[in-house]
Amino acid sequence: MRSIEWISGKVRFIDVTKLPTRLEIVETSDYVELANAIKSMKIRGAPAIGVAVAFGLALVAYHSKTVRYEDFMDELKHAAQVLSNARPTAVNASWAAGRILTKALSYNSLSEVKKAVINEAINMAEEDVKINKAMSEYGASLIKDGDVIITHCNTGMLATVDIGTALGVIIRAHKQGKRIMVYVDETRPALQGARLTAWELKHAGVPFKLIVDSAAGIVMRNKGVTKVFVGADRILRDGHVINKIGTYTLSVLAKAHNVEFYVVAPTSSFDMTRHINEVIIEERDPREVTCIKGKRIAPRNIEVYNPVFDITPPENVTGIITEKGIIYPPYSENIPKILISSSS
Amino acid sequence: MRSIEWISGKVRFIDVTKLPTRLEIVETSDYVELANAIKSMKIRGAPAIGVAVAFGLALVAYHSKTVRYEDFMDELKHAAQVLSNARPTAVNASWAAGRILTKALSYNSLSEVKKAVINEAINMAEEDVKINKAMSEYGASLIKDGDVIITHCNTGMLATVDIGTALGVIIRAHKQGKRIMVYVDETRPALQGARLTAWELKHAGVPFKLIVDSAAGIVMRNKGVTKVFVGADRILRDGHVINKIGTYTLSVLAKAHNVEFYVVAPTSSFDMTRHINEVIIEERDPREVTCIKGKRIAPRNIEVYNPVFDITPPENVTGIITEKGIIYPPYSENIPKILISSSS
Repeated sequence: MRSIEWISGKVRFIDVTKLPTRLEIVETSDYVELANAIKSMKIRGAPAIGVAVAFGLALVAYHSKTVRYEDFMDELKHAAQVLSNARPTAVNASWAAGRILTKALSYNSLSEVKKAVINEAINMAEEDVKINKAMSEYGASLIKDGDVIITHCNTGMLATVDIGTALGVIIRAHKQGKRIMVYVDETRPALQGARLTAWELKHAGVPFKLIVDSAAGIVMRNKGVTKVFVGADRILRDGHVINKIGTYTLSVLAKAHNVEFYVVAPTSSFDMTRHINEVIIEERDPREVTCIKGKRIAPRNIEVYNPVFDITPPENVTGIITEKGIIYPPYSENIPKILISSSS
Repeated sequence: MRSIEWISGKVRFIDVTKLPTRLEIVETSDYVELANAIKSMKIRGAPAIGVAVAFGLALVAYHSKTVRYEDFMDELKHAAQVLSNARPTAVNASWAAGRILTKALSYNSLSEVKKAVINEAINMAEEDVKINKAMSEYGASLIKDGDVIITHCNTGMLATVDIGTALGVIIRAHKQGKRIMVYVDETRPALQGARLTAWELKHAGVPFKLIVDSAAGIVMRNKGVTKVFVGADRILRDGHVINKIGTYTLSVLAKAHNVEFYVVAPTSSFDMTRHINEVIIEERDPREVTCIKGKRIAPRNIEVYNPVFDITPPENVTGIITEKGIIYPPYSENIPKILISSSS
């Protein structure tokens, strides 16, 4: 099972909003339903969103009743707009739409272009799986029998097409037969650790315990933690890691306890142009903190600081695992090397 | 308004389980209702529980219909048992019951003993307020205009009779006219920060922002945090601090960011006999982590590690504020000095 897949004219995906209480698989042949699934976060995680947009355009190509190339392209462009507007801040959505449109524009016969759109979408899904598979192998090579690991947020198959990033590494090591123990941060405010990572580890049969985020300190001090694995939203060329709120706290704890701290992210997550001073920490709806599942847990009319992510400095990062290999410090030197090799 | 008070034959208290959505004040002349309030955590926090037990016995003395001293003492002992069994693990409950019974045993006329029980209970409440007042003055003397403070859990009047410990210090500094900003950890799993501390600060008019616990790192790095104030369940003679889960994580962050870390606790919280190796970290019901307000947020049948508290080592503590003054390192030397002066 993948989190999202193409099955001859239909897209099948896991509705993650129903987890962990129910595994609900949705099948649709309507790209608008797919756009709504992205909007309502039934599909989440940058790579999964990108592939969902591509599959949405493949649905258009598969079911289009147009008979002229120009009419099809109009239909495709309109759908691309609807799909990428579903989550306007998700860069992967517009990136995926752009890639499909570019591909389409290189054809000029109707039958060829429809086939090309579908194939490109399928390729994008396969690429994501291949990249995650490579990262999981590189990462798992670092894990030893007896390792005790902390992870944060959800970085598994539910955030990608399959396998995942940091969680993919952990599950790979388990499948290799290594005896590991994983502590899962619940990851407030959106609780992706409790809701999704716990669900994935349970189903993969990996031994784990769920903890509140603030227990990571005592767990590192008393439970023999050896490694931390987290994902990344973005990595700067000097090794600064932008990721889910709480990642930085975890990196400070890891450093204080001599625990290795690894970031797992594909080379597509590297931002080679932006400087750390240009990164603005966005804030999200205060209700994510003051209400849980519709229940109010804090007084009304109070101020909340709810940053989406935090920034971990390079000196707290032991290594960065990509599909091209593991990058070690000094990052300013070694990140460009890997990135250049990837474009060759 | 106090969190609990004696008003001629009645006990009036704030039902904290209704906060932050509703301020509900309960009045009762029945000690069994008071015992049930302790059991159902309508009254919480060690000092508040102790005084509630004492007031419960004062209610017995006030309303007793007994005409013989022996019958009254039987009634009192029975009530003491009911009240201290309401929260068997709260040492303050049995300590308070013991203190009232000891006082009662030093009298042998019925009218005298009833009066003595009531007076002793009132004294205990006044003592708590006096101690907290002294701590708030010592602590506030450390706070400067412009300080940015992080606090954890609830250590305010809702956990004591009035004023509070760490939160009492913060509110005192605000009342002195110092411009401060407070970041409040929501304090998972029981959310005392979000539910209770946010409510107290809002009503005291202190500028604050609520954060998820894992945001403390980025807040320290980017928001000019100067000091942390927390309470303590227990302090060992060498300065180890046992307190609500997350306190240790906060102390590691404080150290990494050169932020001063203060513990506020009365001398009655010091445990001069126990060694750090003898401290067992109790675990609480996993459902505190897997469910919030009755809503499931994690899969069923998973393992949870839910420690009640953690241990902060002396090297992470800048100072300990007591009603006898502020204790600085070396703690092994300076804690016994203050504790000896308190028994003189």
